Amino acid sequence: MPRILTLAGAQTGPIQRADSRARTLDRLIALLERAAKDGAQCVVFPELALTTFFPRWLLSEAELDACFETSMPNPDCQALFDRARELRVGFYLGFAERTEAGKRFNTAITVGPDGAILGKYRKVHLPGSVEPREGDRFQQLEKRYFEYGDLGFPAFRGPAEWNRPVMGMLVCNDRRWPEAWRCYGLQGVEVMLMGYNSAAYDPNGGTTEGAELRTFHSTLAAQSNAYMNATWAVSVAKAGVEDGSGLIGGSVIVSPDGIVVAQARTLEDEVILAECDLDACRQGKEKMFNFAAHRRPEHYRRIVEQVGATPPAD
Amino acid sequence: MPRILTLAGAQTGPIQRADSRARTLDRLIALLERAAKDGAQCVVFPELALTTFFPRWLLSEAELDACFETSMPNPDCQALFDRARELRVGFYLGFAERTEAGKRFNTAITVGPDGAILGKYRKVHLPGSVEPREGDRFQQLEKRYFEYGDLGFPAFRGPAEWNRPVMGMLVCNDRRWPEAWRCYGLQGVEVMLMGYNSAAYDPNGGTTEGAELRTFHSTLAAQSNAYMNATWAVSVAKAGVEDGSGLIGGSVIVSPDGIVVAQARTLEDEVILAECDLDACRQGKEKMFNFAAHRRPEHYRRIVEQVGATPPAD
Repeated sequence: MPRILTLAGAQTGPIQRADSRARTLDRLIALLERAAKDGAQCVVFPELALTTFFPRWLLSEAELDACFETSMPNPDCQALFDRARELRVGFYLGFAERTEAGKRFNTAITVGPDGAILGKYRKVHLPGSVEPREGDRFQQLEKRYFEYGDLGFPAFRGPAEWNRPVMGMLVCNDRRWPEAWRCYGLQGVEVMLMGYNSAAYDPNGGTTEGAELRTFHSTLAAQSNAYMNATWAVSVAKAGVEDGSGLIGGSVIVSPDGIVVAQARTLEDEVILAECDLDACRQGKEKMFNFAAHRRPEHYRRIVEQVGATPPAD
Repeated sequence: MPRILTLAGAQTGPIQRADSRARTLDRLIALLERAAKDGAQCVVFPELALTTFFPRWLLSEAELDACFETSMPNPDCQALFDRARELRVGFYLGFAERTEAGKRFNTAITVGPDGAILGKYRKVHLPGSVEPREGDRFQQLEKRYFEYGDLGFPAFRGPAEWNRPVMGMLVCNDRRWPEAWRCYGLQGVEVMLMGYNSAAYDPNGGTTEGAELRTFHSTLAAQSNAYMNATWAVSVAKAGVEDGSGLIGGSVIVSPDGIVVAQARTLEDEVILAECDLDACRQGKEKMFNFAAHRRPEHYRRIVEQVGATPPAD
């Protein structure tokens, strides 16, 4: 009997800085309801789904505080949690987290159909810089505003009504790092959930990358890492022109064969959905990517013993 | 000034067991000459380019010995080395190696334009099984016939007339393993050379994979790992029906952006070629994949501390 889990991606259009939280929550709930109506059991929202992508600006501490959640759920997003539980739909939600101790993380949680938080992840691969780049209208200041995730890559099991899948989460830039995927692969991941806010231009200040190339990279990373770890993957954008700055769309659901089975067509609020047979992971996990049979960690030590690249002498 | 290196892939059609070495060498030399005429400076031949893919059969020791080279070059392939040096073209060549001590490896070398051996690699990720699968017409006995590569992933520099690229080699199945690519990425690889013999059906005995899916996987692995390590890659097949068993084609040259810039269209002897600007690697290496700035090895320890997957408790 196939182990089916119906997964959805709830891509959002831009969430402008001027938008009220109530308006944003209404949009997320509308997407959740649309996905639930189509049979979704677990809905993936983007990274930083409750706010604009604020690391594009140099902000004061007070401005910054307004972007962070100090608990989750909290009164400002309780309605989403309540509606999801009513519908018995789970979800992945990205948001900016401030801990009691004042630490700030770029975080995602997965919530089960009963409203319980199944897992929490804090983004490990923070892109951008600590100091703003002079003269640039838009910055990428994640390294300034967030600490590096301190939870590692913690896989967890979904509930029985989802057929107990091994699940993992990544946030945005993490999806381009095969190390992150492999750490989940080594925990037998069957469903990878990922939200992103990816600029439609080079966020590092270059001029050679545009929306088409960056959308291609986003899809390529999801396809190949899903294939190489024999897992389903749901990769979901906040898209469109947000506060004057372009974000790519291209949300996808990818099979363990690396095949795109659902893909967003717009840069707006849009639901993508697929019935995913978790047992489709077995072909890869038991054959080509039977790690126990084929991996040779004695030759991989560079991966943990050095950080940057050290080319041979010229 | 761009640092151009003109790379070629010399895909071959099948090399039947009954083919004489002289005939095989004539074909390789013809491909080399064709590539050189088009301006190639370095030509990539397939894995096990001098023989049929013999691990598909259970062979006697004597039959096996006939498939292995005990030195390289040797009188049976000297003509290829001589012609390459005359043309001042380098090449990657995959072959079955038997050492003086009697160890057997699935090996590749890269030869410079002056005929010197620049680098040697022994396949780390051996697929297949030690024992034959009962009842199957074709086996995959690489784990029986070869030892695991014992040289790690040793990057090396090409010569001045190639603009001193950092080069790496993989063999066939290695190209699906992001750990292997990353070990070269951490040495600043700019040109990855790979040959393969990949079955047009599931070589592990399954029934869900055909030539189209397996060609897609081959290309996806080359594209994504080239992108995630910001390197050029040349991935070259032995293709077609070899001794009754199908092999995929789909040889490609891929840019550091993961874009296919040249692709074989046949399952026969065919040359693909691209003028590659080595400095095109800089965008990725200095920004998105600036390893020193963005990697977090403290979270990657699973990659070396465990071999197989260990899922969370059900």
